[in-house]
Amino acid sequence: FSHLYHFSKVFYLCVHAISGNTDGAVARESTERNCSLTPPYLPSTAVNTSLQLEELRVQMRAMNISAYIIPATDAHLSEYIAPRDARLAFMTGFTGSAGTAVVTLNKAALWTDSRYWVQAERQMDCNWELEKDGRSETQGDYNINLDSSDRSLKSITENLVDKVWKERPSVPPDNLTRLPDRVIQRTWQEKVEHIRTQMGDNPYKPTGLLLSALDETAWLFNMRGNDIPYNPFFYSYTLLTMDEIWLFLHVERVTEELKVYLNASCEGALCVQLKGYDTILDHLKNYVTRPGVKVWIGTEYTNYALYEVITPQDKLLTSSYSPVLTTKAVKDETEQQILRDAHVRDAIVVIQFLMWLEKTVPEGNATELTAAEYVDKCRSSTHLKNTSKQCYYHFLFLCYSPTKETNRRLTVDEMYLVDSGGQYLDGTTDITRTVHWGKPTEMQKEAFTRVLMGNIEISRTIFPSGTRGVNMEMLGRRALWEVGLNYGHGTGHGVGNYFGVHECTNLYLEMTLRCQICQPGYYKENDFGIRIEDVAVVVPVQTKYGNNYLTFDTVSLVPYDRKLIDMSLLSSEQVRNCISLHNQLQDICLQFLKMRYKYVLT
Amino acid sequence: FSHLYHFSKVFYLCVHAISGNTDGAVARESTERNCSLTPPYLPSTAVNTSLQLEELRVQMRAMNISAYIIPATDAHLSEYIAPRDARLAFMTGFTGSAGTAVVTLNKAALWTDSRYWVQAERQMDCNWELEKDGRSETQGDYNINLDSSDRSLKSITENLVDKVWKERPSVPPDNLTRLPDRVIQRTWQEKVEHIRTQMGDNPYKPTGLLLSALDETAWLFNMRGNDIPYNPFFYSYTLLTMDEIWLFLHVERVTEELKVYLNASCEGALCVQLKGYDTILDHLKNYVTRPGVKVWIGTEYTNYALYEVITPQDKLLTSSYSPVLTTKAVKDETEQQILRDAHVRDAIVVIQFLMWLEKTVPEGNATELTAAEYVDKCRSSTHLKNTSKQCYYHFLFLCYSPTKETNRRLTVDEMYLVDSGGQYLDGTTDITRTVHWGKPTEMQKEAFTRVLMGNIEISRTIFPSGTRGVNMEMLGRRALWEVGLNYGHGTGHGVGNYFGVHECTNLYLEMTLRCQICQPGYYKENDFGIRIEDVAVVVPVQTKYGNNYLTFDTVSLVPYDRKLIDMSLLSSEQVRNCISLHNQLQDICLQFLKMRYKYVLT
Repeated sequence: FSHLYHFSKVFYLCVHAISGNTDGAVARESTERNCSLTPPYLPSTAVNTSLQLEELRVQMRAMNISAYIIPATDAHLSEYIAPRDARLAFMTGFTGSAGTAVVTLNKAALWTDSRYWVQAERQMDCNWELEKDGRSETQGDYNINLDSSDRSLKSITENLVDKVWKERPSVPPDNLTRLPDRVIQRTWQEKVEHIRTQMGDNPYKPTGLLLSALDETAWLFNMRGNDIPYNPFFYSYTLLTMDEIWLFLHVERVTEELKVYLNASCEGALCVQLKGYDTILDHLKNYVTRPGVKVWIGTEYTNYALYEVITPQDKLLTSSYSPVLTTKAVKDETEQQILRDAHVRDAIVVIQFLMWLEKTVPEGNATELTAAEYVDKCRSSTHLKNTSKQCYYHFLFLCYSPTKETNRRLTVDEMYLVDSGGQYLDGTTDITRTVHWGKPTEMQKEAFTRVLMGNIEISRTIFPSGTRGVNMEMLGRRALWEVGLNYGHGTGHGVGNYFGVHECTNLYLEMTLRCQICQPGYYKENDFGIRIEDVAVVVPVQTKYGNNYLTFDTVSLVPYDRKLIDMSLLSSEQVRNCISLHNQLQDICLQFLKMRYKYVLT
Repeated sequence: FSHLYHFSKVFYLCVHAISGNTDGAVARESTERNCSLTPPYLPSTAVNTSLQLEELRVQMRAMNISAYIIPATDAHLSEYIAPRDARLAFMTGFTGSAGTAVVTLNKAALWTDSRYWVQAERQMDCNWELEKDGRSETQGDYNINLDSSDRSLKSITENLVDKVWKERPSVPPDNLTRLPDRVIQRTWQEKVEHIRTQMGDNPYKPTGLLLSALDETAWLFNMRGNDIPYNPFFYSYTLLTMDEIWLFLHVERVTEELKVYLNASCEGALCVQLKGYDTILDHLKNYVTRPGVKVWIGTEYTNYALYEVITPQDKLLTSSYSPVLTTKAVKDETEQQILRDAHVRDAIVVIQFLMWLEKTVPEGNATELTAAEYVDKCRSSTHLKNTSKQCYYHFLFLCYSPTKETNRRLTVDEMYLVDSGGQYLDGTTDITRTVHWGKPTEMQKEAFTRVLMGNIEISRTIFPSGTRGVNMEMLGRRALWEVGLNYGHGTGHGVGNYFGVHECTNLYLEMTLRCQICQPGYYKENDFGIRIEDVAVVVPVQTKYGNNYLTFDTVSLVPYDRKLIDMSLLSSEQVRNCISLHNQLQDICLQFLKMRYKYVLT
């Protein structure tokens, strides 16, 4: 499992291109199912799920269960899951990353939000109803409203609880690793003491803290694994008390060196007692029988099976996020610095890739897949040895990975959106650029420019400490709203350091936005898509009268496509803040990169 | 009780002036209590509450109660209450409109938010601790966070419930009235049918709807009362089922004419059965014993005594707001039109008042009280016969009413903030202007201009249907944030038509903002305060590409003080959108008003 010591690994790649040059034979109007026809029309991408459903219902009848809920997550409520946990895709055919399915004895339905409606219509057969989730387009990720579908789902979940505690069948094979000292500021012992201080300061006096989210344990111990593709986590729970540390994981994966590192041979307040991954439930049950204990959990990432054993009520303390998640969201100085370094290296890859496209596409030989292979190769050449994941943007989906079946030739007549990133040991990058190799239409230029205006407006705004993303994100939309355009996803999210690419986004900005993604966009159905995504660090700023004000310092170093910018739409402020900056960036960055990485840029 | 038929009545008036010319003898540093001194220092404004507390504790001991909670509201959770319900002020001395007190056997504490901290320090004696509520300055009214104080309070309230159902002792004396036809678009029968349709459409199939907020019943039946000063409500509950209407009120206040209007002599689906106000609890208890019933309540305005009798759980349906409140928030065409008319009439009053100040203050004879009397007189001359309420703005408080003791002379050396409004039969007005009669400082001009920029930015923004206030309100702050300034209250709130001046603010803008107040501000402690408050109607707007977009149409017609505007700070967009508009407004409006109301402007 040596590759975790490698410098970085490619994280994901998203590509977007307009329709009209699909190499496949399927006409556009037939890419979605039509269950109102007799017989129903199913595209070739749809999965026949009759067998799965029948087998599930046999078991439901045998157990006298009237409805079965299939979530998209695993036992840790992870956003990205390992293939072995892909229950939703297995049952429904739908492979989007967000959704919930409910199967009753005579009905089956999938709930998902607007990002995935088209994809669901392509992938599901007519056994399934699609229930459109009430995500507010205005608020994106920040605030999902309960509409009637959600309420129906909620009422089902309230009446039915899947109490089966399934032990995960397979043990991940690889050994776990610790981070090298150069990328960490605080040792795990310092982090443990810091979290215990927060527990002691809590007025409800919790005696124990249960960590369920995989990145909580990985962050706390400065350790990483590779159990979920492109996410450096390992299956684990932690129960941290004021004088003990219990780490639940597959103990056989812990090397002798790691055992020394974790101080695993003792039982003191700074000794990590290693317990089997599957014993968490029993240990937790035992712990709550002790007199006077109170277990603190973050409800956003704790599964019901663990939650329900913490009884009676006065032994439970809940908050949305655990103190580990809120502490981890704020990047320390070391993390900020190494993150900037990672973005310099990653910018080489993206600039080189965009240069290659500019040269190759007009020659007529580039496809979505060859482009993906090329950017993988670029990232690999900057100290990378890993293969990459391809997640592509497509005119129909907000996010998809091209396959042989969907592969399409890239041409000078289209907008191309590439959303990609790498997992580096010192940082996780996430950048989106939209380019055009031919002559964009006026509407494309206007939409792109207004997306850029949103990006600029957010990044130049000064705001007081304590501001939340939900209070700011309309700045990314306002220039689009002015002409009646909008986008159906959130504007920003936190990002980890060699961690998840989405960190909890609903906290105060000074927490989530160290560092934070700004990603306004616009998508015209069946035509083109635009997104501009930059990573920024939240930094203090001096103001004329007040203290405790913050602003963004963008660390993404890849220029925007000048061809798509209608300068007449920008205010003079916006021009000053962005274009001149990026002109400089383009020059400085290219020179700098050429000097530093001669072997990459030719 | 004839005055409800009068054309309008003055609603409230707020005045702000800087310190430095207090006519009273109390020095500035001694206006707040200091409980750390021995003996404690108490200003003359503090109320001795030892007797009240001792009497309460005697009763608590007798009943074995360990803590007693005193809310600021009445049984209907009204924002403004009648004097008989002013329990919080009686117990604590604090007269602010928001707060909660908790009395234990050896401690007493008041929770209130930043608007009232100074006021509480002036009015409370040292029996009371002040607990500063965790209202986020950024989010104002929109999103109050649970900080540790709130959590403590919450935990107290969770453990203790004041289950005493106290019958209100006094019966309001006045008869109730119905609105004249010219100000209503829908009859009460049409409204009842409309609400029943919403009940029928609800997937949980409620059989009954309980209306507790006083403006719910008043709106539904197009009726008004005068039970709470400056709020045209009457004590009432309604239980609306699919085939019955029960109206709980003081039946002796209903005239024979009103009984005919309400169709009170029958029991059909459109007959209103009048029940005694104090019988609501028993009737509700009876109703929930019927098989198959389900009662819908809006939790924001239903008290616990009513809530807890709706058992078991499956007989209860909750939403934050009842369908009556959400329907009422959207103003129909008639309401929008008569609201505009009311603002034309009210603008006369405010312009005349500002002109009078401009002439009178330099002469040295105007005080806060004579100014208040003058604006009352102006409002009275526009068809008014009522006396007014005075609620003044002061340099220390965000809202206060001057009294003989606090009265101060107005001078040309100060900023003057006047927040006033009238209750007209066809609309409720609410407008704030800040003026200066001498030479403002550069900082005052900059702060005022940036407040104005916030006001302009909100009013000129185009936004999609479905946007909430919380997503927009930072636009009111952004220009202030840029130089490190901010304000500690919400940016906007809904407003009623001859109704409450604050309507539920946390809904989608298209609901609350028909019509909506925009009120950015800035307050420099012990120095000056600025606020600009306009009422706007939310109107559809044509955009280049999209549908279902909205914007604001400001209906307040009073110009801003040009002397306080630093034009160099405004963008050309802002100048176009505001100043030219308001120059025109000033001319057009004055001419128009002179023609239409010759007898008012001399």
